[in-house]
Amino acid sequence: MLDIKFSNKVVQVEAGTTILQAIGLAGRQVESNCGGKGTCGKCKVQVKTDTPYSPTLAEKKFLTVSELEAGWVLACQHTLTQNAVLHLEEQKDVYQRKTDFAELQQIALGPSITKHPLKLSRPTVEDQMSDWDRLVSSLPGTKSICFSRFAAATLAKVLRDSGFQITAVMDGNRLIAVEPHDTSSLGYGIAVDIGTTTVVVYLLDIIQGVVVDSAAMTNPQQIYGADVISRITYAAGGTEKLQEVQRKVMDGLNKIIAKLCQENKIPPEEIYQAVVVGNTTMAHLFLGIDPTYLAPAPFIPVFQQMVDVEAQELGLDILAAGRVVVLPNVAGYVGSDTVGVMLAAGADRLEGVSLIVDIGTSGEMVLSGKGRILTCSTAAGPAFEGAEIRYGMRAAEGAIEGVNITADVELKIIGEGKARGICGSGLIDAIAEMFKAGVITSSGRYASEPEELEQLPPRVRERLRKGERTNEFVLAWGCDTASGEDIVLSQKDIRALQLAKGAISAGITLLVREMGITPLEIDRVLLAGAFGNYIKKESALGIGLLPPLPLEKIHAIGNAAGDGAKMALLSLEERIRAETMAKQAEHIELSNKKEFQDEFLKGLAFEGIF
Amino acid sequence: MLDIKFSNKVVQVEAGTTILQAIGLAGRQVESNCGGKGTCGKCKVQVKTDTPYSPTLAEKKFLTVSELEAGWVLACQHTLTQNAVLHLEEQKDVYQRKTDFAELQQIALGPSITKHPLKLSRPTVEDQMSDWDRLVSSLPGTKSICFSRFAAATLAKVLRDSGFQITAVMDGNRLIAVEPHDTSSLGYGIAVDIGTTTVVVYLLDIIQGVVVDSAAMTNPQQIYGADVISRITYAAGGTEKLQEVQRKVMDGLNKIIAKLCQENKIPPEEIYQAVVVGNTTMAHLFLGIDPTYLAPAPFIPVFQQMVDVEAQELGLDILAAGRVVVLPNVAGYVGSDTVGVMLAAGADRLEGVSLIVDIGTSGEMVLSGKGRILTCSTAAGPAFEGAEIRYGMRAAEGAIEGVNITADVELKIIGEGKARGICGSGLIDAIAEMFKAGVITSSGRYASEPEELEQLPPRVRERLRKGERTNEFVLAWGCDTASGEDIVLSQKDIRALQLAKGAISAGITLLVREMGITPLEIDRVLLAGAFGNYIKKESALGIGLLPPLPLEKIHAIGNAAGDGAKMALLSLEERIRAETMAKQAEHIELSNKKEFQDEFLKGLAFEGIF
Repeated sequence: MLDIKFSNKVVQVEAGTTILQAIGLAGRQVESNCGGKGTCGKCKVQVKTDTPYSPTLAEKKFLTVSELEAGWVLACQHTLTQNAVLHLEEQKDVYQRKTDFAELQQIALGPSITKHPLKLSRPTVEDQMSDWDRLVSSLPGTKSICFSRFAAATLAKVLRDSGFQITAVMDGNRLIAVEPHDTSSLGYGIAVDIGTTTVVVYLLDIIQGVVVDSAAMTNPQQIYGADVISRITYAAGGTEKLQEVQRKVMDGLNKIIAKLCQENKIPPEEIYQAVVVGNTTMAHLFLGIDPTYLAPAPFIPVFQQMVDVEAQELGLDILAAGRVVVLPNVAGYVGSDTVGVMLAAGADRLEGVSLIVDIGTSGEMVLSGKGRILTCSTAAGPAFEGAEIRYGMRAAEGAIEGVNITADVELKIIGEGKARGICGSGLIDAIAEMFKAGVITSSGRYASEPEELEQLPPRVRERLRKGERTNEFVLAWGCDTASGEDIVLSQKDIRALQLAKGAISAGITLLVREMGITPLEIDRVLLAGAFGNYIKKESALGIGLLPPLPLEKIHAIGNAAGDGAKMALLSLEERIRAETMAKQAEHIELSNKKEFQDEFLKGLAFEGIF
Repeated sequence: MLDIKFSNKVVQVEAGTTILQAIGLAGRQVESNCGGKGTCGKCKVQVKTDTPYSPTLAEKKFLTVSELEAGWVLACQHTLTQNAVLHLEEQKDVYQRKTDFAELQQIALGPSITKHPLKLSRPTVEDQMSDWDRLVSSLPGTKSICFSRFAAATLAKVLRDSGFQITAVMDGNRLIAVEPHDTSSLGYGIAVDIGTTTVVVYLLDIIQGVVVDSAAMTNPQQIYGADVISRITYAAGGTEKLQEVQRKVMDGLNKIIAKLCQENKIPPEEIYQAVVVGNTTMAHLFLGIDPTYLAPAPFIPVFQQMVDVEAQELGLDILAAGRVVVLPNVAGYVGSDTVGVMLAAGADRLEGVSLIVDIGTSGEMVLSGKGRILTCSTAAGPAFEGAEIRYGMRAAEGAIEGVNITADVELKIIGEGKARGICGSGLIDAIAEMFKAGVITSSGRYASEPEELEQLPPRVRERLRKGERTNEFVLAWGCDTASGEDIVLSQKDIRALQLAKGAISAGITLLVREMGITPLEIDRVLLAGAFGNYIKKESALGIGLLPPLPLEKIHAIGNAAGDGAKMALLSLEERIRAETMAKQAEHIELSNKKEFQDEFLKGLAFEGIF
């Protein structure tokens, strides 16, 4: 076994483990978007070993000579054969903040969990009724109560230690726990949003109907690849691989839950329920269900319905008999996260026609109105999240999140430090500004003709240069960046964004056409997700991503997927609404439509297709 | 760690482990009736160590000088501090034999398991229905199907590998497995009878309705004590102890199941269901439910109803999503085994009045008739099973199972070898014959007056002698025994049997009185259990255990508890009948009845109380 030292711990790994795997084993994180293929160049770590590693082709491509000399490697490129000290660049995640979602107070509180304080008669030789029957016969209502081995296991002692004054915790007609004395004023649940990139857990007081706390982490499945296809491919390798991927997210969730419980002084067994949303692949992996056939056409999920499972069965560390509810999905690429968005947005209640766009690692769109709910999805997301972009990064500290081009380029950076890369909202801003300023043409080509270059302000013009392979534009000079290296956008980066943008705008076009309206008849556009929160609406319109509607018709609705999960946790009625909407939704499969291909090609141009 | 060598394996144990625990850890068995208190003297093993153990008081009491010299010890008396070689006397269990229960063919086959061969249409981009919905929509009937994560986990691959021709396995409205191609002619289940002393597993073909095989083992919980109270006391020590006791029986069952599967070439995942019976304590321990309050009055079980749990949750190695059904119990000391007996005997269908007596480790009695089912129980069993009797043993090889006294004593021994002890049926035979011959008086006292001794045949008389503390009767002289030691019945042994017999006959008296009839109005007596199979009816009548009915009204019905489990496995209708009978049964609690004490005292005499 080798000793691998991290800043805060030492782990022992077998020789032959890759550095990337060792980081996972240590419970640490590093960006990795290609699943260890060496094609994304994100998994940079600094390694100290007795014998230095020889750089691989991939490392020569992604790392500078000075980085290589300082011991930086790509973690996926080397297996460990000797003891090592690993230095990881920590990224403070901007999602890690307290949340309080005011809108939750607008729903009628009515969780499926109910608590019943009861005072039972004591058994005697004349009244030998079993503990379970004694309890159940005191419960209100006459419905038949499902047996729970976990509630029963300790029932005898709880009853007698509390003098037969207890509180029964019910989830629907399941008796899931029995607590000593009257605990009816206490009760918690969690809402979980499993994004491909980020996992967020909200701790809610389900009696008061408020969010107590929340925490987030990078999805630990990231080590199997940044996109869902990489993870499906890994999990398709057999039952053990599938279980490994499931274990990974479960372990991550359990860490967050433990932290939330500790910080808020709540015993895990007082968390009675979890409501989970995620894209269809994440939901399959979370439940340990083979997602293999989500990858190839015709993209078939194993299940679509709402699923609930006992927490102990999944290994989720809340009350053992608590139910874990996964909201329904609509299709292979329109998951319960989108259903959560529909619920939070009130897609079934809004007047007129609403377009809901959720761009995360993938892009899902919902068009509701005229009594219909239409959905479609495109694999357009990664570029918007900074993947596939040379200097792309998550919306974390050091990310360029805003760009303004006048006489020169002005940047807005997340946090206090220098620029480290560019996140999705920054990218759209940059492209919109570059298009407006004439740095790029409508077709996405960098200005190169003399008359094109002439009209650019001098300090902008000098940022446009020939890169290694293609033209590139310097967003931040080395003196203003954390690495000392220039941060540039290459022609290839522009193309990646164009492909993503083209897919989204083509999808919207097809939804609108299916409903028999024109894009300008849309009454409102709701942008879900962190992306929607940070994006500058003018820029989204500027690159033709959205139909050219008045700005006041465009709204950011935040992490609506998570909000939908919270609503389904706090209200059984809302949960049923989510189920109804998922059943009602008509999914438009874009992949096999020639019409989509046509619109997509047209949509590549920044003037757009609307 | 110490190396402890057995005939077929070596186990490593920590210093400080008792020899008894080490035997358990090695998965081996030794009799042990007192739970390691050193009061039963049953856990004899031969030990080779470098430094011999000094005999304890208990060993001086139970072992002969020559045994002590040969290295025999009581396994509960010593902790291991050095490597050791252990020699256990193997007992071939008479229960280990193939069974074919003809009566099973008389019930209408209709298990809750159904198999449905289906040919599904293949999904296309135009028909993106999920695999689960595709399958469920092809199932007959319109009932809503419960989701199973286990069936779903591998569904995608099973469908595609089999060209969408599969067989759905349902348990009621639960889809528990999906198998490739048409497997509707194959399907298995197990019926499990968890006795305090012996655990029996029957493997049944639930499609054909036949018993394929069966196997038995001593209940591995034996190491926590022979009687239910010792085990309750141990399990009451906290959650870990409770789980340890549960694990013990589960591990034992899994070994039997693995063996049955291997020998019959059946994959464990083709066992779709388990139906379990056992006394109320065994059922609690099997489910990991705290049995503490079964021990003290008022003897309250945690549950009484029929319970079913997913196999994976319990850790029972059959199909993960298969249900484990535990039949209902009637009271703290009238368990699902008795309900199984009622079912197998047809207590709700027999004409007239039927008395059912099941004497195992405890004694349960059922009186059915006049539209009522009455039950009671006594802790009378152990003496009948050879516990509490100096030379008592299970009905295994070497047990005296029959005794005849004429001019001398004639013995019937189980198996080929010499006598090793006496089992329950032999004991009753011996006492009945001794009473008839005048060796003991009606009050249970050994003949001692000259006129009493005079009438005994000389060779019988010379067997009657003064033992260490009390009088004793030599059943087998040392030349005819395996150990070379005389096998005797002491006055104390007679008293133990009298107490047991008194309790049973008093229980019967109270049941009969509750129904408002006389004992002679009973139309039939059904004797359940191995005990009932082996006991000589004349002897049972001879000691006044049963009412003095004509012999032809007394029937042995074999392991009716196990048969009831088989019936509930093969027929949902029969299972519902069992549930109905358990609800209908009126339990008579004897412990607090002065009337019972009175009858019990009268019933000690061999003339009896009927």
